[in-house]
Amino acid sequence: AKTFNILVLPGDGIGPEIMAEAVKVLKVFETPERKFELRQELIGGCSIDAHGKPVTEEVKQAALDSDAVLFAAVGGPKWDNQRRGLDGPEGGLLQIRKAMDIYANLRPCCSTSPSASITKEFSPFKHEVIEGVDFVVVRENCGGAYFGRKVEEATYGDDGRMGLFRSRDPTSYTSIRRSGTAAQPPWPVISLDKANVLASSRLWRRVVDKTMAAEYPQVKLVHQLADSASLILATNPRSLNGVILADNTFGDMISDQAGSIVGTLGVLPSASLNGLPGDKTLKTRPYGLYEPTHGSAPTIAGQNIANPVAMILCVALMFRYSLSMEDEAQRVEDAVRKVLDSGIRTSDLGGKAGTKEVGDAIVSAL
Amino acid sequence: AKTFNILVLPGDGIGPEIMAEAVKVLKVFETPERKFELRQELIGGCSIDAHGKPVTEEVKQAALDSDAVLFAAVGGPKWDNQRRGLDGPEGGLLQIRKAMDIYANLRPCCSTSPSASITKEFSPFKHEVIEGVDFVVVRENCGGAYFGRKVEEATYGDDGRMGLFRSRDPTSYTSIRRSGTAAQPPWPVISLDKANVLASSRLWRRVVDKTMAAEYPQVKLVHQLADSASLILATNPRSLNGVILADNTFGDMISDQAGSIVGTLGVLPSASLNGLPGDKTLKTRPYGLYEPTHGSAPTIAGQNIANPVAMILCVALMFRYSLSMEDEAQRVEDAVRKVLDSGIRTSDLGGKAGTKEVGDAIVSAL
Ligand SMILES: CC(C)[C@H](C(=O)O)[C@@H](O)C(=O)O
Ligand SMILES: CC(C)[C@H](C(=O)O)[C@@H](O)C(=O)O
Repeated sequence: AKTFNILVLPGDGIGPEIMAEAVKVLKVFETPERKFELRQELIGGCSIDAHGKPVTEEVKQAALDSDAVLFAAVGGPKWDNQRRGLDGPEGGLLQIRKAMDIYANLRPCCSTSPSASITKEFSPFKHEVIEGVDFVVVRENCGGAYFGRKVEEATYGDDGRMGLFRSRDPTSYTSIRRSGTAAQPPWPVISLDKANVLASSRLWRRVVDKTMAAEYPQVKLVHQLADSASLILATNPRSLNGVILADNTFGDMISDQAGSIVGTLGVLPSASLNGLPGDKTLKTRPYGLYEPTHGSAPTIAGQNIANPVAMILCVALMFRYSLSMEDEAQRVEDAVRKVLDSGIRTSDLGGKAGTKEVGDAIVSAL
Repeated sequence: AKTFNILVLPGDGIGPEIMAEAVKVLKVFETPERKFELRQELIGGCSIDAHGKPVTEEVKQAALDSDAVLFAAVGGPKWDNQRRGLDGPEGGLLQIRKAMDIYANLRPCCSTSPSASITKEFSPFKHEVIEGVDFVVVRENCGGAYFGRKVEEATYGDDGRMGLFRSRDPTSYTSIRRSGTAAQPPWPVISLDKANVLASSRLWRRVVDKTMAAEYPQVKLVHQLADSASLILATNPRSLNGVILADNTFGDMISDQAGSIVGTLGVLPSASLNGLPGDKTLKTRPYGLYEPTHGSAPTIAGQNIANPVAMILCVALMFRYSLSMEDEAQRVEDAVRKVLDSGIRTSDLGGKAGTKEVGDAIVSAL
């Protein structure tokens, strides 16, 4: 029997509730031939409370030893105005991204996923604007302004450069380079930067150019200024169909904005991987961390009203990218679609169901 | 008779054509008591061709000596892949912003401006989503990652800090502080940052907090993470009604995205001021540079098809903010609305009129 080791990190706020539903769904797929060994640990605020830091070395090691990590959400007012950055609750997430070297954050965005009925109701856009939208944002996740080592406040990088772009440091260079391998022909790659202003963006552009020319000469590569891209994403998103590649900061902005296509973060999962699906240089299936795109929603925590769908769809992404279980991934997505279309929804989606009822309904549909 | 000195910078691409229409409109307001002394100079690519740099010291001085600057657009493929950043065509704009110390970039965004009929047709959003949207983005324009002095490529700031946030440099600190004075009660101020990750954002937040508490204690101040803000702007933009305050980089992204509310950049002007309207510390009316939010559109240059509306609305903003001519500002805006509603539009707005015809129609309407 094959055993997958899954690290489960519920975190703070609504994290534990929605994770419980995801674990229920995961268990449906246990068979005599396939076991899931779950290890649950603290991250974020609850880890600060217990250990004085948002993630311990032990948990980082557990992540490295696992086949995949399920992460829910971190943070809350309790820890605001205390330590922030790498030492705050969100620092737990940043540190584990870095420790796992999961440099590629993928956010699929498709106007019919998870369910056309959800997009129709919740998208702020006119129907004809978003019809047929289908892209993946690939955000560089382990570099850029996010990871300048802090010598003193407001200093980026110990040698005075922004993290990703310390050009004397080959690892950071490699980290951009690898993001350039996202393409799955025939999708075009649309790379965002501000090369007209920022030297860091000019480096980004050169590396993307070189990588794409060397590894995917047949793939169409388009450079798009990041500010224009944020406008295009809101006016003609179909024209960005393909792989949207961006650094940590621009990627953070653009991937949140991408949530507007479907119109509700409550149903949007994401994957952070140590390699891109289809990357020829990768020896194994990419391992990764799977997290909903929404936050810890502390104001509604503990009331059985949080929407577990994004977290449950993380299980599908994990099946797809890390566990070679594509059929099972699709079964989860189909079950979610069926339940949402039938009207069994939490209140954020206009329904009356509780967190547990939605989870149970998805399990029944499976 | 009062004489206003206006520096006219047509720049590249469609710049000269649309500027010609703006100047026509400006001239309508000349009276025996009010003269406009226009001085036209090069900026951007055309200045690189003539002088080897995107803006000369003489032109910077002319800007400082003027009552206001009208700027059209810079850049084009001819100068791509040459020098970029401060030395490229866009560098002309960046340098003049810095020389004039016009630290506050204002982009008004209102769902009925310049004309409800335009928004209705061109906005990608469902009508109910954008009804009643009315905010101003105030972007810090002279600091941040944009102005790190370049010691070598990919180095930010000669002492290794990002421009705006060299905390030992009091001028950069002041530059954020002043942006904190945007509020016109009862509008709330919504300040964007990534204080959960970036030390620079935590400094930004502290300065905004302090300034607002000291100068506008009665104004509601909200801190909003920049990534969430980009999602909110696309899902519930009315909830951002007020003053949206952001640093150079986040402000660049968010103000371009804001163009999606109306749905076409062709009708959106912007102002860059050395002080905010209503700023009590300012001795005179703020002087500033007025520019359309669209670019130089080199592919359609010289064909009499570019839309001159945004450039013409820059004249209205100049009247309002720099020349104490509020009535005249409104007359320009009314004339533009009338012409657009009557269907006299360039092809980007689905019309058949040329650049000159639209300009002439607005002049007649006046
Ligand atoms: C929570 C925060 C550190 C994080 C980020 O900025 O990366 C979040 O916004 C995200 O996009 O995953
Ligand atoms: C042209 C460019 C330098 C400029 C900027 O990034 O500031 C533009 O995008 C803007 O927003 O005015």
